[in-house]
Amino acid sequence: MIRISILTIGDEICIGQIVNTNASWIANECTKAGCQVTNHTSIRDVKESIFAQLDKLSPDSNVILITGGLGPTHDDITKPALCEYFNDELVLNNETYQYLEEFFNKRGWVLTERNKAQAMLPSKCKILPNRAGTAPGMQFEKDGKYFISLPGVPQEMKYIMQNSVLPFLQNMVSENKSEVVLYKNLMTAGIPESRLADLIGEPEEFLNGGSLAFLPSYRGVRLRIGVSAENFEAGSQKIDTIERIIGDRAGKFIYGTDDDTLASRIGEMLKIQAKTVSVAESCTGGLLGAAFTDISGSSDYFIGGTIVYSNEAKINVLGVDKKTIDEFGAVSKETALEMSSKVREKFNTDFGISTTGIAGPTGGTEDKPVGTVWIGLASKDKTDAQRFIFGNDRGMNRERAVGAALTMLWERLKG
Amino acid sequence: MIRISILTIGDEICIGQIVNTNASWIANECTKAGCQVTNHTSIRDVKESIFAQLDKLSPDSNVILITGGLGPTHDDITKPALCEYFNDELVLNNETYQYLEEFFNKRGWVLTERNKAQAMLPSKCKILPNRAGTAPGMQFEKDGKYFISLPGVPQEMKYIMQNSVLPFLQNMVSENKSEVVLYKNLMTAGIPESRLADLIGEPEEFLNGGSLAFLPSYRGVRLRIGVSAENFEAGSQKIDTIERIIGDRAGKFIYGTDDDTLASRIGEMLKIQAKTVSVAESCTGGLLGAAFTDISGSSDYFIGGTIVYSNEAKINVLGVDKKTIDEFGAVSKETALEMSSKVREKFNTDFGISTTGIAGPTGGTEDKPVGTVWIGLASKDKTDAQRFIFGNDRGMNRERAVGAALTMLWERLKG
Repeated sequence: MIRISILTIGDEICIGQIVNTNASWIANECTKAGCQVTNHTSIRDVKESIFAQLDKLSPDSNVILITGGLGPTHDDITKPALCEYFNDELVLNNETYQYLEEFFNKRGWVLTERNKAQAMLPSKCKILPNRAGTAPGMQFEKDGKYFISLPGVPQEMKYIMQNSVLPFLQNMVSENKSEVVLYKNLMTAGIPESRLADLIGEPEEFLNGGSLAFLPSYRGVRLRIGVSAENFEAGSQKIDTIERIIGDRAGKFIYGTDDDTLASRIGEMLKIQAKTVSVAESCTGGLLGAAFTDISGSSDYFIGGTIVYSNEAKINVLGVDKKTIDEFGAVSKETALEMSSKVREKFNTDFGISTTGIAGPTGGTEDKPVGTVWIGLASKDKTDAQRFIFGNDRGMNRERAVGAALTMLWERLKG
Repeated sequence: MIRISILTIGDEICIGQIVNTNASWIANECTKAGCQVTNHTSIRDVKESIFAQLDKLSPDSNVILITGGLGPTHDDITKPALCEYFNDELVLNNETYQYLEEFFNKRGWVLTERNKAQAMLPSKCKILPNRAGTAPGMQFEKDGKYFISLPGVPQEMKYIMQNSVLPFLQNMVSENKSEVVLYKNLMTAGIPESRLADLIGEPEEFLNGGSLAFLPSYRGVRLRIGVSAENFEAGSQKIDTIERIIGDRAGKFIYGTDDDTLASRIGEMLKIQAKTVSVAESCTGGLLGAAFTDISGSSDYFIGGTIVYSNEAKINVLGVDKKTIDEFGAVSKETALEMSSKVREKFNTDFGISTTGIAGPTGGTEDKPVGTVWIGLASKDKTDAQRFIFGNDRGMNRERAVGAALTMLWERLKG
């Protein structure tokens, strides 16, 4: 098994000012390549900490992937630190220098001394080209271990991962005939974790040494199947067997696999059925529209919507009957139903979805506590609404309302 | 200086299926309490890895904060592992048991054996109550170091941090009279990083041993001032001095500090000026409305909006003149201007903001490449629009358009 450690270098990660999304992206890609990621570590921009950490990580890793600290300013110390750690010296790398010249010329920028210094690279490392920016990656080898340094800027890191590092790892996995660990995710919606577990039954009976994790989120529960095997083919077969058993027991709640999202699957279904959708949002305030339009190509089926946050907007802009709101309240089945029909008419779409609720933290009453959300779904034949009672957290309530609205549409689409 | 290590335990973090937002939250809170976070480490749910990591982290830390693996299912191994590591044994903790009984009774749930086991806790550790869930925190002490184990569920982790751990750390900092590291963020908008750096000049001249980091994001550049001092008072004074100098040089671009966001500051300004706003979104598809309504209390000034993704919706729902779109295109100054005035009229608000652009990855032309976005801003006296050319990434273009729209409104509001 190829064992990988991920090392992130940067004060801003360490003191918690930014979330380490690079580490999870890298880990996910390395896992898909059949490697085992054994740990992520983040440390400060301090040379001694970098040295100490490389010493600690080496014994248990085949490959150490390092991100961050390769920029052109004074606080970027990764390159000189690695150079010192590997007893190397910086020399001008002609290929990189030419690339930098072109990069700056094309943009009409001047190549400053500071930028030229980015072509000064350790003499003994392998240079990994970066066509998404100016700091190339560097691959060192020592005692049979690989140390690969990448920029911290996500697009640049991803470019080098996809073009140099992942092919290198895939090659390592197949050449070493090393054991692989494979994962597959089955994405479910419309069923809570505990009911899903009951449907699936005791996993030990069919996992045959593999693993099954239940990972709930606001947009459904993800089932993660994991197996280890002597190679990819054998691993895929093991996964297929487990997937079939889960499919037999809970298939109707599974909307897709791995990179599918509820919004992307709904998009595919709307395209195939040649249907369109619009939204009328109160408590979600635009988030539901954003979930649809996050998908490239959504203009084929997502026509638009109204964000009707105030009662006046619900009445004057969307055309909800003032009497409905006066009698039943803005957060009610009746208002949700009317919002979904009105938006469907207004945008002339096959489906209309509405959200109205109390996101919190204030505005709750005894009858309608914070977290109460009504979601309406209108189509030509059928208009209905469902009530949900989520929690106390504003952000969470809004996200869960989006998840519930998408789930209602998905259930209607699959019929 | 109190040195803190954060250790996250969980396969789902390690293989990259979820992003480690707990670590950044904890790091940020500990930093605010005056401690120095030296590293974050994430490892798998494997007993031997937990033991090895605790051995590695102890020498350099005063406190090790551990999250994850405290749930009631078979893959949650943190509690037995810590119990073994500290040569302790699990005993029934009466206070926790009573709390669990109440917790389940109140909800009308049955307290199962699996749940009762959560009251079995190591005999020698200090129990940190968790009133947001069922797994309490545990604080061990060994050789003058503290090891604190917290659940991985964010709300539960935060509850115990706020009620037990942070007071403990604050106390440690003040009792030990240990050196503190303080940070303050100045939030800027409407100026790129390099121009801001030019305005501020050479930081070494006024930092007096402190640090200044430039942290760009889609919603502006954050300036992070850092100082170390013998106590909080002395640290605050150092920060004040640096802040005043930066304020003199770049004050008009600073909209707030630390937890302020552009959307929250705009909200405050709209409330004070008793003004209202509405949005007409094309390429942002709801994200701009979501940015406003993310703020609690936004119903005071955010009235609503339209998501007009298709040209038909722009014409039929919002009332943009078909001729404008035919002549200039949907992505044009003219369309942006008309969208912002129309939405302002429709929702009867003081300000109307519009976005129309090519988010990508497809749909670009030579004249209007992917990343072209027009943003319009209408008010009674003045309606104008600005063009932006962002990049190739759909998600990034949408986020940057929201940032630019908020910045335009902020600039108009501050006059």
